Amino acid sequence: MELINVRLSAGGNSIIILNQTRLPGKTEYKELCTAEEFYHAIYSLEVRGAPCIGIFAAYALAVLCGRIDTGSFEEFRSQLIRYKNYLNSARPTAVNLGKMLNRIESHAVTHKNLPIDKLKKELLSEAVSIHEEDKQMCFKISDYGLSLVKDGDSILTHCNAGPLATSRYGTAQGPFFLAKERGISLKAYCDETRPLLQGARITTYELSKSGIDCTLICDSMASMVMKQGLIDAVFVGCDRVAVNGDAANKIGTSGVAVLAKYYGIPFYVLGPSSTIDFSCRTGDDIEIEYRDSSEIKSLFFSGPVALPEVKCINPSFDVTPNELITAIVTERGICRAPYEDSFRKLFPEQFTKLL
Amino acid sequence: MELINVRLSAGGNSIIILNQTRLPGKTEYKELCTAEEFYHAIYSLEVRGAPCIGIFAAYALAVLCGRIDTGSFEEFRSQLIRYKNYLNSARPTAVNLGKMLNRIESHAVTHKNLPIDKLKKELLSEAVSIHEEDKQMCFKISDYGLSLVKDGDSILTHCNAGPLATSRYGTAQGPFFLAKERGISLKAYCDETRPLLQGARITTYELSKSGIDCTLICDSMASMVMKQGLIDAVFVGCDRVAVNGDAANKIGTSGVAVLAKYYGIPFYVLGPSSTIDFSCRTGDDIEIEYRDSSEIKSLFFSGPVALPEVKCINPSFDVTPNELITAIVTERGICRAPYEDSFRKLFPEQFTKLL
Repeated sequence: MELINVRLSAGGNSIIILNQTRLPGKTEYKELCTAEEFYHAIYSLEVRGAPCIGIFAAYALAVLCGRIDTGSFEEFRSQLIRYKNYLNSARPTAVNLGKMLNRIESHAVTHKNLPIDKLKKELLSEAVSIHEEDKQMCFKISDYGLSLVKDGDSILTHCNAGPLATSRYGTAQGPFFLAKERGISLKAYCDETRPLLQGARITTYELSKSGIDCTLICDSMASMVMKQGLIDAVFVGCDRVAVNGDAANKIGTSGVAVLAKYYGIPFYVLGPSSTIDFSCRTGDDIEIEYRDSSEIKSLFFSGPVALPEVKCINPSFDVTPNELITAIVTERGICRAPYEDSFRKLFPEQFTKLL
Repeated sequence: MELINVRLSAGGNSIIILNQTRLPGKTEYKELCTAEEFYHAIYSLEVRGAPCIGIFAAYALAVLCGRIDTGSFEEFRSQLIRYKNYLNSARPTAVNLGKMLNRIESHAVTHKNLPIDKLKKELLSEAVSIHEEDKQMCFKISDYGLSLVKDGDSILTHCNAGPLATSRYGTAQGPFFLAKERGISLKAYCDETRPLLQGARITTYELSKSGIDCTLICDSMASMVMKQGLIDAVFVGCDRVAVNGDAANKIGTSGVAVLAKYYGIPFYVLGPSSTIDFSCRTGDDIEIEYRDSSEIKSLFFSGPVALPEVKCINPSFDVTPNELITAIVTERGICRAPYEDSFRKLFPEQFTKLL
């Protein structure tokens, strides 16, 4: 099953979306027609994921332009700009949104000498091109990513950069879907990704609906599954990459990378080259967004966060190896490595018993 | 303010508890009198934390024994055993529960020649001794722990082993409360501790109510706060320690230890010596409990998980340093360290622009 998040209706006068706010509980497709409906879909996160928002906005602007009733390009353009500004204001910080809206406008300007009817078709086909280019890009990233692992591997993921946030394959999660097409078996271990649980709510939904073997874990369980030898590689996405290779991604990614290094597991960052910011020398130049504490302090909903068929492992404890422990503090004193010697001094009666 | 989780009423005929199931939203003290109420308090986690359960059960059994109407020790003992078995069945796997109930029974047997009235008082005072011994033990652990850090330090914690799970100071969180008494300033960063959020719900409640500076983070944020130099040491508890020092504790602890090692931060395990299992050679001998996946797949309640006054930091992204990244995969190809050279080959036009 191919997951479709956004598509133009057959008549080219409306857009059909998968309402991502209802996931994972409900797979609800909606047909959107009006400017207000398009705005609301972006604003309320019914469409989400930077590339997906860009694709949707391009379709939305082209559909709205198809209804402009004028013979004059100047009038056409000023109405286009009104629509563009309106849609762009739905999520002012989403870079892809403004970028793709501007691309539709530029395309109109480039073709301003066409009759308005032909121009309208030209804008729709530019929106289709934006969508197709994203699919191609996702395919290539997935293909390169897939070349780094082998049939039967298990891969840990963090957060979401799959088909629903992009198109067709996705980026960081793309290799799973491409592998499935090619009959290659990859297993996924998905960090739930607190605080907003995109890993639980979106990634396991996408994988599970596509018949890919996936297991949901809490972020804090990555160390244990790695230690147990269950993980062959890590795939994560990226939001911004500095020229020296330092990569910003969803909170928690750097912790997964430290764990992967400790356990000797390869750690791969997958993303479109547009995320490489050539103006950032190192990660220190990347500004980090801080969000409201209510996301942590208040659970934003109750009930299921993953489909019933999604597997979980839920170990209640894990074991920290002695080499990582600076000291063990008991009521009889402070013990240091080698711990057996230290315990023998503090608890001689226990060792007498053992003999 | 000293947090009291369990105390005997003035008359010695009932027990007053802080209902821990209502935390952090409501600080509700309850007076419990009957065997059924005692059972329910254990079963429903109104009292929780291994030492706290043991202390409560000792009081409960002593209170119930105070009501046995007989002059014969044999009759007294068989009624005591009925109460003991009933209370013990509330949480069959809680080791401290059975241990402390047995201690009250043994104490009765030791003093079987006393008149029943005096025996009843003897059992109440044995329960008080159990409570006092736990306080002493917590004090010593806290004192040793505090000697490992200095005024002004910030300490990361995972899960909960504070006053509410034990008595008075707690174990892993004990140094914070002892420091407060001594006018030493320690700051706490508390992992929320998924899936059951004991760090958010209990640890920040205890610290905050005691006027200790604490900041709540998601488990996945520990790497970032460590990298920012905000953490001077890590304090965690332990559920079982092997003779070689490998230590089992709440899931996620081993991950925190790996991070601490990477960032060069001391990692301390604090716990009573009763958690050292001299029959376990290494951590491989420690059996790990797996719990139901519903704890991860379904949010067990909605709304606040921490007091309004608890601080949070909620970075949306973190930066993974290039040294931890095996490869960066883009639609143009796979880049490897040194990344700038690799980017220069794949994206020469970007570097021309930079000049």
